[in-house]
Amino acid sequence: MRHLLSTRDLGREGAIRLLDVAEDMADTQQREVKKLPTLRGKTVVNLFFEDSTRTRISFEAAAKRLSADVINFSAKGSSVSKGESLKDTAQTLQAMGADAVVIRHPASGAPQTLATSGWIDAGILNAGDGTHEHPTQALLDAFTIRKRVHGDASRGRGLDGLSVTIVGDILHSRVARSNVWLLTTLGATVTLVAPPTLVPVDTRLWPVTVGYDLDEAITAGPDVVMMLRIQAERMHDAFFPNTREYARRWGLGDGRLARLEPTTIVMHPGPMNRGLEISAAAADSPMSTVREQVTNGVSVRMAALYLLLSGDREN
Amino acid sequence: MRHLLSTRDLGREGAIRLLDVAEDMADTQQREVKKLPTLRGKTVVNLFFEDSTRTRISFEAAAKRLSADVINFSAKGSSVSKGESLKDTAQTLQAMGADAVVIRHPASGAPQTLATSGWIDAGILNAGDGTHEHPTQALLDAFTIRKRVHGDASRGRGLDGLSVTIVGDILHSRVARSNVWLLTTLGATVTLVAPPTLVPVDTRLWPVTVGYDLDEAITAGPDVVMMLRIQAERMHDAFFPNTREYARRWGLGDGRLARLEPTTIVMHPGPMNRGLEISAAAADSPMSTVREQVTNGVSVRMAALYLLLSGDREN
Amino acid sequence: MRHLLSTRDLGREGAIRLLDVAEDMADTQQREVKKLPTLRGKTVVNLFFEDSTRTRISFEAAAKRLSADVINFSAKGSSVSKGESLKDTAQTLQAMGADAVVIRHPASGAPQTLATSGWIDAGILNAGDGTHEHPTQALLDAFTIRKRVHGDASRGRGLDGLSVTIVGDILHSRVARSNVWLLTTLGATVTLVAPPTLVPVDTRLWPVTVGYDLDEAITAGPDVVMMLRIQAERMHDAFFPNTREYARRWGLGDGRLARLEPTTIVMHPGPMNRGLEISAAAADSPMSTVREQVTNGVSVRMAALYLLLSGDREN
Repeated sequence: MRHLLSTRDLGREGAIRLLDVAEDMADTQQREVKKLPTLRGKTVVNLFFEDSTRTRISFEAAAKRLSADVINFSAKGSSVSKGESLKDTAQTLQAMGADAVVIRHPASGAPQTLATSGWIDAGILNAGDGTHEHPTQALLDAFTIRKRVHGDASRGRGLDGLSVTIVGDILHSRVARSNVWLLTTLGATVTLVAPPTLVPVDTRLWPVTVGYDLDEAITAGPDVVMMLRIQAERMHDAFFPNTREYARRWGLGDGRLARLEPTTIVMHPGPMNRGLEISAAAADSPMSTVREQVTNGVSVRMAALYLLLSGDREN
Repeated sequence: MRHLLSTRDLGREGAIRLLDVAEDMADTQQREVKKLPTLRGKTVVNLFFEDSTRTRISFEAAAKRLSADVINFSAKGSSVSKGESLKDTAQTLQAMGADAVVIRHPASGAPQTLATSGWIDAGILNAGDGTHEHPTQALLDAFTIRKRVHGDASRGRGLDGLSVTIVGDILHSRVARSNVWLLTTLGATVTLVAPPTLVPVDTRLWPVTVGYDLDEAITAGPDVVMMLRIQAERMHDAFFPNTREYARRWGLGDGRLARLEPTTIVMHPGPMNRGLEISAAAADSPMSTVREQVTNGVSVRMAALYLLLSGDREN
Repeated sequence: MRHLLSTRDLGREGAIRLLDVAEDMADTQQREVKKLPTLRGKTVVNLFFEDSTRTRISFEAAAKRLSADVINFSAKGSSVSKGESLKDTAQTLQAMGADAVVIRHPASGAPQTLATSGWIDAGILNAGDGTHEHPTQALLDAFTIRKRVHGDASRGRGLDGLSVTIVGDILHSRVARSNVWLLTTLGATVTLVAPPTLVPVDTRLWPVTVGYDLDEAITAGPDVVMMLRIQAERMHDAFFPNTREYARRWGLGDGRLARLEPTTIVMHPGPMNRGLEISAAAADSPMSTVREQVTNGVSVRMAALYLLLSGDREN
């Protein structure tokens, strides 16, 4: 792998390979000393044009456990705010010898631009770009589902035959987009459930079913229910009068939780709005994988860094 | 030790043990290479909900000298500001494999909540919570006093028979609270001197004497005078017309300095308001331990991290 | 070397020695594992009173490749903003065991104050102070010129016989000042070209020629043209109606670029205002060393840290 920009580009084989390496990484995290010497002498730059402490520290932990040096570059208050272009920032990081750049950017496509521009040789990892993609989030979600379903027999497998329902603000969600492509590539069936105003028009071209009624979707008995974070400032776009109304119609409350099969996997990328898109009981139930998702995030990011930075990057 | 939350909970034996380990750590800092491999592969997260560069870099230096990986998590501009609960933050850090969390929080009791919640297994170190406690500050103060008084013969000893006068804004000071409990546990006698409006009512229940006249307290000939930082915004609470008036009545100025025995230990947790609660001459006199306190802070924090993270945490 | 405060103090021998060590460092960056164990156990503090992500991460990368521990101390939001003096900050870092302090400060002379105050034993590296100096920038510029001109035969050489033209806002530029002293010490002839309102009066005492006409300076056929960054807020000081007018008179546009000898070296310290003081074509032409300057910056800073922190600092 040269870069990790989107899950849409990722073939089934490549995706499974990354998940399998992540399994190996997860195993190392059970050892007494979690640190591996694998990426010693490599420099990983976290280039964040938007705040995201959770994603940044997950990548930082992953890089450090592989013994890479990590440099955090928050674009706020930097020369970027003095008008420096992405091109010049990229060339600067290239010239400083960055081996990998983990980039979060408000503009969809910025990581792609970095990777294809020729400005920089470093491996580029997309940590979220605009409303486009957030591939490591989808990979950790797929890893989590596979692990819950197949346990120790996960390696080499996809998600064939599983049904996943993604609920909430699809319109603005890069997490949803990355999951749609990855989960279907891995063989799952994906249903999107959202208020009509929060469904993008191009879902017609996606390999998904779209629904507007969460109760109906739950009745269908999905294997996985993935709740998305709703952002208060988006409420208005969705023509919802208030959060209570949103929770009533689109939230995974206690009533809906009770109607799910006990084997259903309940996911959320975090940070959660407890009581809004997910109730406290749902978030903390044994069906919830919220914490496993975070743990698996470190393993998946270790795998991505490993595949990009060690040995044969062209493969 | 499982956690370090307050000095009030710390028995005499536990406190002396920590100070003794800090002596060992201080010894290692005299070596050519100050770095120890002790905590290699451990991850220490500095979770700061309030700015405090001094305390944060002291913990960061301590952790790095023990070869731990350090991740700084400033809650400003993080998902916490998007409304994430302390519970979710804790569970995230747990899921990422944090071995210790150094927490500073504006709410008294937040570290205790973290430690007892079951949300996270990591060792919790309180780096200052509201007006409650700041235990490593008190431990470094006790270490500094013991070292000044007993020198190389410090190990195993308490502070029996010593008299300590703490001066200033007791009401808002977690440093004062942590010192009251620790110093008395170690055998010292503590006197608090403050403007009446800056003395909390519950000092009646503390093992201390309260006075309101600094000159009188100095005449009593204490072994240690510990000046607290006064915050400009608290002036108003204390009904002081201005800083000059405060300095005149409650500051350790040159006149009062001259009246102290030359063996008196003059302390300040920093950062100092020179000319306000302490004169430049007092801050820089040979009686002052201000710099030793900072040095000892690193040793004490190394000891705390060591006791929490290496081997038998339950002991 | 005890400190690196300015290039004005640096003799020819000392400057060439540092450039030669930087050549050695550059060689190590070609290896499979770029990391050297040289400064293991040393603590480098980046003490930044002004934002400068580029300079900070260059020093951070340099220190980490030498295996030093790096602690970033941004003075914004720190106790410094609560009124702590530079003295107390310095004594704190000393007490914590900082081996080197990389300081950027808005006040000219602050690094000199730190170094000569006796407050701290650490090696002090000036990373830019007010309008005074930015010595590592000049050293990386000199390194870059020497390398372009002499290639593998650079070691031991100065810049004798070379002509360097520095163009732009000399008045506010610490980069210009550091270059004037260093380049002339190394044997180069320096010409300054600027709007009359952006030339400081004391250039009369500098070993330079001052001109006001960029076209004339280009006709003279300099070996090096170094463009300085113009800051929008300084436009007004220079009585320029707008940026277009500035670019027309003082920018290195495509027309002027075409008139330069193809062997001319075009430099810029970054970040560039493309289209203002330098055109995109000039910035990206083979004559431009903008990226080499960044790469060489890491090597030069590794050399400076090495000379300050390893072995005989007094030499």
